[in-house]
Amino acid sequence: MNQAVKRVVIIGGGFAGLNAAKALGNKHGVQVTLLDSRNHHLFQPLLYQVALAGLNPGDIAAPIRSILAPFQNITVLLAEATGFDLAGKRVLVKELDPVPFDYLIVASGSNHVYFGHEEWEQSAPGLKSIEQAREIRRRTLLAYEQAEMTEDPVERQRLLTFVIVGGGPTGVELAGAIAEMSRFTLAKDFRRIDPRQSRVVLIEGGPRLLPAFSHDLSANATNQLEKLGVRVQTECVVTGLDRHGVVACGERIPAGTVIWAAGVKASPLGALLGVPLDRQGRVLIEEDLSVEGHDYLFVLGDLAHFTGRDGNPLPGLAPVALQQGKKAARNILRDLAGQPRKPYRYIDKGMLATIGKNKAVGQFRSIHFTGFIAWLAWLFVHIYYLTGFANRLQVVFHWGWSYMTFKRGARLILGQDWRMFLLRGGEKREEAPK
Amino acid sequence: MNQAVKRVVIIGGGFAGLNAAKALGNKHGVQVTLLDSRNHHLFQPLLYQVALAGLNPGDIAAPIRSILAPFQNITVLLAEATGFDLAGKRVLVKELDPVPFDYLIVASGSNHVYFGHEEWEQSAPGLKSIEQAREIRRRTLLAYEQAEMTEDPVERQRLLTFVIVGGGPTGVELAGAIAEMSRFTLAKDFRRIDPRQSRVVLIEGGPRLLPAFSHDLSANATNQLEKLGVRVQTECVVTGLDRHGVVACGERIPAGTVIWAAGVKASPLGALLGVPLDRQGRVLIEEDLSVEGHDYLFVLGDLAHFTGRDGNPLPGLAPVALQQGKKAARNILRDLAGQPRKPYRYIDKGMLATIGKNKAVGQFRSIHFTGFIAWLAWLFVHIYYLTGFANRLQVVFHWGWSYMTFKRGARLILGQDWRMFLLRGGEKREEAPK
Repeated sequence: MNQAVKRVVIIGGGFAGLNAAKALGNKHGVQVTLLDSRNHHLFQPLLYQVALAGLNPGDIAAPIRSILAPFQNITVLLAEATGFDLAGKRVLVKELDPVPFDYLIVASGSNHVYFGHEEWEQSAPGLKSIEQAREIRRRTLLAYEQAEMTEDPVERQRLLTFVIVGGGPTGVELAGAIAEMSRFTLAKDFRRIDPRQSRVVLIEGGPRLLPAFSHDLSANATNQLEKLGVRVQTECVVTGLDRHGVVACGERIPAGTVIWAAGVKASPLGALLGVPLDRQGRVLIEEDLSVEGHDYLFVLGDLAHFTGRDGNPLPGLAPVALQQGKKAARNILRDLAGQPRKPYRYIDKGMLATIGKNKAVGQFRSIHFTGFIAWLAWLFVHIYYLTGFANRLQVVFHWGWSYMTFKRGARLILGQDWRMFLLRGGEKREEAPK
Repeated sequence: MNQAVKRVVIIGGGFAGLNAAKALGNKHGVQVTLLDSRNHHLFQPLLYQVALAGLNPGDIAAPIRSILAPFQNITVLLAEATGFDLAGKRVLVKELDPVPFDYLIVASGSNHVYFGHEEWEQSAPGLKSIEQAREIRRRTLLAYEQAEMTEDPVERQRLLTFVIVGGGPTGVELAGAIAEMSRFTLAKDFRRIDPRQSRVVLIEGGPRLLPAFSHDLSANATNQLEKLGVRVQTECVVTGLDRHGVVACGERIPAGTVIWAAGVKASPLGALLGVPLDRQGRVLIEEDLSVEGHDYLFVLGDLAHFTGRDGNPLPGLAPVALQQGKKAARNILRDLAGQPRKPYRYIDKGMLATIGKNKAVGQFRSIHFTGFIAWLAWLFVHIYYLTGFANRLQVVFHWGWSYMTFKRGARLILGQDWRMFLLRGGEKREEAPK
């Protein structure tokens, strides 16, 4: 009987990998090993809330190991896949023996891309991990602290300028949250500066914000942001970026904090598979989510290029990854049961982007909604999908509290190198202002 | 009128400094500046809960700036005091102009001391800051992950051995929490190892645990810990310590994680005042909490040596610091009102140390209590004193949840250098086992 047990190896504990594992959990005939180089699953849609001090890391992340603990046929390894031996049906793993498989699911996601200016990352972190969220939190809060201490009005204005590059949902959420934090949360905490005078600039290279949404919702989002005091600049390309600010559409914008939300590239593991990729490095997959000519190999989520009904690849959204994870698992189970595989069809759950309290836009098929209704829908959907019952209640609590008081509960500046950072802030004052 | 306003500078936003500031808040005739090199006040008695994944950092820390925001006469500066010019009545501050004062309150606390082996800190972090708590969390959780991956039974046992040096309240709390986490929280999360087989060793140099408590409570605490499987070693001195384990009372104990809770020394700012110190570097203070010959200078909390009614210096406890902060502030206000200062008298609030769920010891004057009652008292007192209403409710929620489920909500391995750490774990496997 043991011979019949199929070994399924899953790489990545994001929405796709985790849901594939759950769908295979406690099923007869499969033994699952999930590899991730991080110990936790992250609810990425709420990561900007950790960056802007609304939530604690523990509210939106949970150990993969404990999520999958109820499934006796699943082993979780905190380990990094480094390559593949597809002919030998083995995954190469850093510092460990290769892991053999009968089925392989690769769902290692995507990273930020700086369009050939990787040196910009130092000055403008992206928002993919909790560490990055914490770095953004540290930079944002320290900017106010440094502004409170400086005597130079030009430097003070620079420190109180926040630039977000990229007008997708993450960029819009960050811009709205910083503007709201400045106008409400921090307004009374300082003596020498008025946080309400901070400037938030949102830069988008394309003609409008939220390009995946309809035109009217893009315009509405721009309008809601502008009401919060955000300066929205579209058709504006960043050509220079350092720790004193950005150069965008020919103008130099001195800024204390720059955040990158402009683009993603597929995880480098995709290229190591040696199978066809699209121009963004995503693996081309078939209707059943496997790779052509490799029916044991599934690639899912942000790493996959699945052509939707409109001929375009499906977007890198959590619902896509989640649905694909379940479907891939079910197709493996159908194989074992001797049934034919079923094709994956994207079930459109709509899209939501939040801007601030009572401010959001949403689109579900032909229905468009804005303001309070969209915000309520956003709240409901995100709480519903949060992993783990405790987290859900906690986030409800945090949000209820913040809603009533405009306080943010996790406003801590942490990190062992924060002193260095403060020092650099000091250096800046001497080198830069002009 | 402005001439009559006295400038009070407070160094340190711990229990003493923060409570001094609050007591001076919105009072006529004083202008307060509080300096701290961290942006947050930390509820240190619960820091071990952050280290052992029970609470999020945001639950036990709050920005000093927002705690003091209601007081218009208080300015908070995120800045580091580097020295004093007492003759010129100025505090020297890193990278900023000196800050002049009429009254100075120094309450910069204490740090860990490694008794001349400062190189041990790398292998055995202490528990004073959130960063350290996070480092302990990372090491503890990674030890289980590495144990799950290793094939070598000797190395596995080493990784599952946790040594805590120091049998005061922090050491007892850490030992109890790790034992509980192994036996309950993690028990079902792993496939290859059984976390219940982990060893927790608590090492104390003196003849008994919790030396500040009565003998019967020390014995009771030892008993409660042993029931959780903790090995308690008293009259045992650590003579060697590196990243493979410790040498204590002549025996080598291979261990994956060592935590230091063995001793504290006063903040180095005390010595920079140029006034008399005791052997531990604490500043000797008078009955009114000021320094002899410097009636404008108050030193409080862990940095102060105040002789109690029994002839011994008061212990470094939160209630002492809190009471002293209030009293010093009131004595300054009495000065301004032309009234004589009042002496400080320590109001004994009793002592509590928790060991685990339903397990604690407590002592209030002649009343001793143990087990569930002590634990309830501990819970009540700590929730009551937590700064900020939101935090309090959140912690109640976390604890209620953990109590019912034995789950720990914040079990994340974070930190930018965690990969390095994993790598070092790998190296260890090759160099060490013997």
